[in-house]
Amino acid sequence: MPKVTFLPANITVEIPEGETVIRAAMKAGLHINASCGGAGVCGKCKVFVEQGEIRGEALPEGGYKACTLIPLRDVVIRIPVESEVDRRALLRPGRKVAQAWLEARAVAQVSADPLLKKLYLQLEPPSLENNVPDLTRLETALKKELDTEELEVNWQVLHTLPYALRKEGFKITTTILDRKPIKIQHVEPGDKRQRHYAVAVDVGTTTVCAELIDLNTERSLGNTSDYNPQISYGEDVISRIEFARRGEGLKILHQKIIECISKLTQELCEKYKVLPEEISHFSVAGNTVMTHFLLGLEPRFLRETPYVPVAAHFPLIPARDLGLPGGPHTLVCLAPCVASYVGGDIVAGVVATGMAQETPLTLFIDIGTNGEIVVGNQDFLACAACSAGPAFEGGGIKHGMRATTGAIEAVSINPHTLEPMILTIGNRKPKGICGSGIIALLANLFVEGIIDQAGKYRRDLKHPRLREGRDGWEYVLVWANESATGEDIVFTEADIDNLIRAKGAMFSGYQTLLESVGLEIGMLERIILAGNFGSFLDLEQAIIIGLLPDLPRERFFFIGNSSLLGARLGALSKKALKEMEHISQMMTHFELSAHPGYMDYYVSALFLPHTNIDLFPSVKRILGTSQAN
Amino acid sequence: MPKVTFLPANITVEIPEGETVIRAAMKAGLHINASCGGAGVCGKCKVFVEQGEIRGEALPEGGYKACTLIPLRDVVIRIPVESEVDRRALLRPGRKVAQAWLEARAVAQVSADPLLKKLYLQLEPPSLENNVPDLTRLETALKKELDTEELEVNWQVLHTLPYALRKEGFKITTTILDRKPIKIQHVEPGDKRQRHYAVAVDVGTTTVCAELIDLNTERSLGNTSDYNPQISYGEDVISRIEFARRGEGLKILHQKIIECISKLTQELCEKYKVLPEEISHFSVAGNTVMTHFLLGLEPRFLRETPYVPVAAHFPLIPARDLGLPGGPHTLVCLAPCVASYVGGDIVAGVVATGMAQETPLTLFIDIGTNGEIVVGNQDFLACAACSAGPAFEGGGIKHGMRATTGAIEAVSINPHTLEPMILTIGNRKPKGICGSGIIALLANLFVEGIIDQAGKYRRDLKHPRLREGRDGWEYVLVWANESATGEDIVFTEADIDNLIRAKGAMFSGYQTLLESVGLEIGMLERIILAGNFGSFLDLEQAIIIGLLPDLPRERFFFIGNSSLLGARLGALSKKALKEMEHISQMMTHFELSAHPGYMDYYVSALFLPHTNIDLFPSVKRILGTSQAN
Repeated sequence: MPKVTFLPANITVEIPEGETVIRAAMKAGLHINASCGGAGVCGKCKVFVEQGEIRGEALPEGGYKACTLIPLRDVVIRIPVESEVDRRALLRPGRKVAQAWLEARAVAQVSADPLLKKLYLQLEPPSLENNVPDLTRLETALKKELDTEELEVNWQVLHTLPYALRKEGFKITTTILDRKPIKIQHVEPGDKRQRHYAVAVDVGTTTVCAELIDLNTERSLGNTSDYNPQISYGEDVISRIEFARRGEGLKILHQKIIECISKLTQELCEKYKVLPEEISHFSVAGNTVMTHFLLGLEPRFLRETPYVPVAAHFPLIPARDLGLPGGPHTLVCLAPCVASYVGGDIVAGVVATGMAQETPLTLFIDIGTNGEIVVGNQDFLACAACSAGPAFEGGGIKHGMRATTGAIEAVSINPHTLEPMILTIGNRKPKGICGSGIIALLANLFVEGIIDQAGKYRRDLKHPRLREGRDGWEYVLVWANESATGEDIVFTEADIDNLIRAKGAMFSGYQTLLESVGLEIGMLERIILAGNFGSFLDLEQAIIIGLLPDLPRERFFFIGNSSLLGARLGALSKKALKEMEHISQMMTHFELSAHPGYMDYYVSALFLPHTNIDLFPSVKRILGTSQAN
Repeated sequence: MPKVTFLPANITVEIPEGETVIRAAMKAGLHINASCGGAGVCGKCKVFVEQGEIRGEALPEGGYKACTLIPLRDVVIRIPVESEVDRRALLRPGRKVAQAWLEARAVAQVSADPLLKKLYLQLEPPSLENNVPDLTRLETALKKELDTEELEVNWQVLHTLPYALRKEGFKITTTILDRKPIKIQHVEPGDKRQRHYAVAVDVGTTTVCAELIDLNTERSLGNTSDYNPQISYGEDVISRIEFARRGEGLKILHQKIIECISKLTQELCEKYKVLPEEISHFSVAGNTVMTHFLLGLEPRFLRETPYVPVAAHFPLIPARDLGLPGGPHTLVCLAPCVASYVGGDIVAGVVATGMAQETPLTLFIDIGTNGEIVVGNQDFLACAACSAGPAFEGGGIKHGMRATTGAIEAVSINPHTLEPMILTIGNRKPKGICGSGIIALLANLFVEGIIDQAGKYRRDLKHPRLREGRDGWEYVLVWANESATGEDIVFTEADIDNLIRAKGAMFSGYQTLLESVGLEIGMLERIILAGNFGSFLDLEQAIIIGLLPDLPRERFFFIGNSSLLGARLGALSKKALKEMEHISQMMTHFELSAHPGYMDYYVSALFLPHTNIDLFPSVKRILGTSQAN
């Protein structure tokens, strides 16, 4: 069995004969980009062989594809720095003000009425005259207290009940599942009402966020997040669905996400001195694929026509069944999904916005690894998934990367010198460009006339940064001697093409969805941008490239992680849970590609900002000023 | 660590320094009688040291108490033959006719309407026009089929649903839990309605019986039984409750009974070619203590005043939670209990008799390791536990034993020679006397005038079999050279005293319970004897000793294992389950010892057949004939 040593981590693992380097890295717990799930297609998994004999596919720019690389004897492999995942960057501050405002508004709308409640009861101790069973004693008191005839009981309660009753003289706290019929879910000795917590979780394809909630104060004690460890098995949902089909793939993806949520929960518990047993429930929102992985459900029919989820609404599940922290009473409550590509994260987000209770016609946009959109108000809701792809997260962009340390997050170009000014996350040497940087760069290149409406570099401009590289024309954003990778960081026409297709998919998505319900973009009274991406987006730049419609700026709102916020509302309030159920059922899902006008809309959107510049009057004005110079 | 070798089994185990031989035997999986749970009190755990050095308490008659015996180095231990448990004897044929009649009658009363039902559905396969989630597709069809608005789902169904649907072209069998709201419990591809089974279980203190039921034909395919392996940790419920308090005791008792039920179930499955996954539910009846052990519930408050069970009615429990065979859908349904010493076995038994639906005033008697009685009819039910003790199972009787191979089960005494004629189970050399033999012996000794009304041997009779032994006066039933043990098998005055107290507890129990509800023995229209014991009892002899009331013989019925029969009815019918709930709630439980007249009744019953011979007119006539000679 050959040994593989990975640098810079300096970790060595043994692998069976014929196994690939990317599988060795998985075994070592090291991350190598592999957005195609190890299929040898994406070419992102570049590594360098520092020592030893190996067989595999060399990349034209040097290095090898790790997913094709098979050690013939002991080898030393270097993982290039741009593959590293840096979690701290997730915690960079976003656009706080609008989010705080929306958050306060959303929380105010729900009354604190959690699905699981704690009640304190003082029971009469048993005597020979009244020696009914412990459970009957508790039930009788609860039926009186709650004025109900029927009660169910979680059978695990029977294990602790006799001790809980006798520890503090038949004074007892009981946690009830407040639905019809009410269920006794948990018992504790004495008065434990003050220790009552929930955990809200947003399971994103890229990022997992967890928040600890005090159900007494109705406040978030704090939150934390980490990359979804499934990234190591494929960057997007499609490659993970493919991975799930191989051998133990589904089991591995299930375990990874459970481990991640468990770790985040434990971190929060330690930090805020809460015992896992004091968590009554998890309220979880995720897209349909992530929800399938979380429950260990077969995902393949999600991506095979006709795109059928196993389930879109879910019963309450004991946390223990899934392997999550907590006691035998702790439950997991999942946000319902709408369709294969419109999930519980969107449903939770819509609840967080309150748009389904209000009159203004609202467009809700969540741009993450995919783009989902919802349009509607209190009268109707329609949704669609836009096949925008991961370009805005750096996917399919030559030097694109996730928003981690060293990512270029902001760019401006000097209109005279055409020299760039860049800012990176963490102020480190640049490694690549993340979403907000990519949009800024594209908008700047376009406004300064370095590229034309079709996204092509102006061949007539002579500038050292503009050149024809191996992949065609490109703009050098960072020279090799300034970059963390020791390579030029460039932005190619192929990158621009990917971005235009991505934003075109979004914009034609708005148009098609609105047309499907008989409306037009100009009628939108409110546009709410959800997601981490929205928090760092420059609104003007996004409009300039045609990613967002050119509407009065005061109609735009940034809500941040609306999925997590919706999950928190679900944790706090039965009403919010009911609303999620209601929204998931009333929301009409449209397959955009099935709409007869979609292709026309899409092709028209493959220009900057759009073939029909009159749809973007403010951009037209800017172009009139800048490009006229 | 010393090694202990046990003979005749020839099994060797290593034990830690200072550990007792009885614990070594447990480890070796060998049975040694230990009716005091290893407390060193009962002296039943006699073993012989054949080799090696040992420290411990020698018994006056030779041998050692295994529970006090500590090997100092490697030893060889012989377990005497009377300790062996012989399972085959459980299967000896009993009083079949009455049972079959009652059984047919009971089964006829319930309509086949099991709690879990299988439905076959042909669903429309998904298309782009109808790509609802698999679960929604199933739910929609089921709601239509069942004409219901609300459906719940066992979340584990989601793991198999997509495969089950697609394996046979969206033809599917679903198992529903038929209550309000209906729950989807299981799915299977194609039409599996014909494969639908349940297992009925009677968990006795001494014996565990299981029966495999075909829910389509409503017939029992067969049954099997074994000794309750908890016997090794204490013969009666009290010593087991004591054992449960020590270290892992409760866990061990829980595991043992689960292992036993699992083994019996697997045997039945193999014999009748049924897959464990085809079992939809277990219907289990046991006394309150056994039910606590089965669920792993704290039993100590059952025996501490004021005698409070943890629970007397139980929610449905997934078989997997308990470690029983079956799929994730298999449920366990437990017969509800009434009080600490009136359990689900009695409730199931009452349902099996049908007495709660009929007008005749009925006395239901279950004599097992304890004696429970129920009186009533369709208008009322009252019950009590008689502290009869295990004398009728051989407990507390010098040469008493369970009804296994070699047990004397029938006795008659020649009125002239006073020589006995005995029959043993399996026609082997006698090892001891079991319940039916004990009653026969006592009745014969009394009728032949060898003992008087107080149970004392007539000192004036000169006969080689009558002598004053180490434990006082005794009758030698088997001489040493004829017994399997090489010892005289004797019946002492102390044994007789124990039996009189036991039958006195039963008889005064009937009187006290009847008085509590304002009735008298003469008013009883029907006496139903339940239990294995009843099947082998000679009615005349039982009346002669005053164990049963002296009423017209046609009022007596023997129902056999009514607990198992009740469990079967529960498996077949929701109505029977409902009736069990109803009966357990309507049944009034009386603490006999709390009744002011109880002590008088008890003391009066401490004679043969009774202080008031006029209560036993037919016995009076027999005595007039026999003793007059």
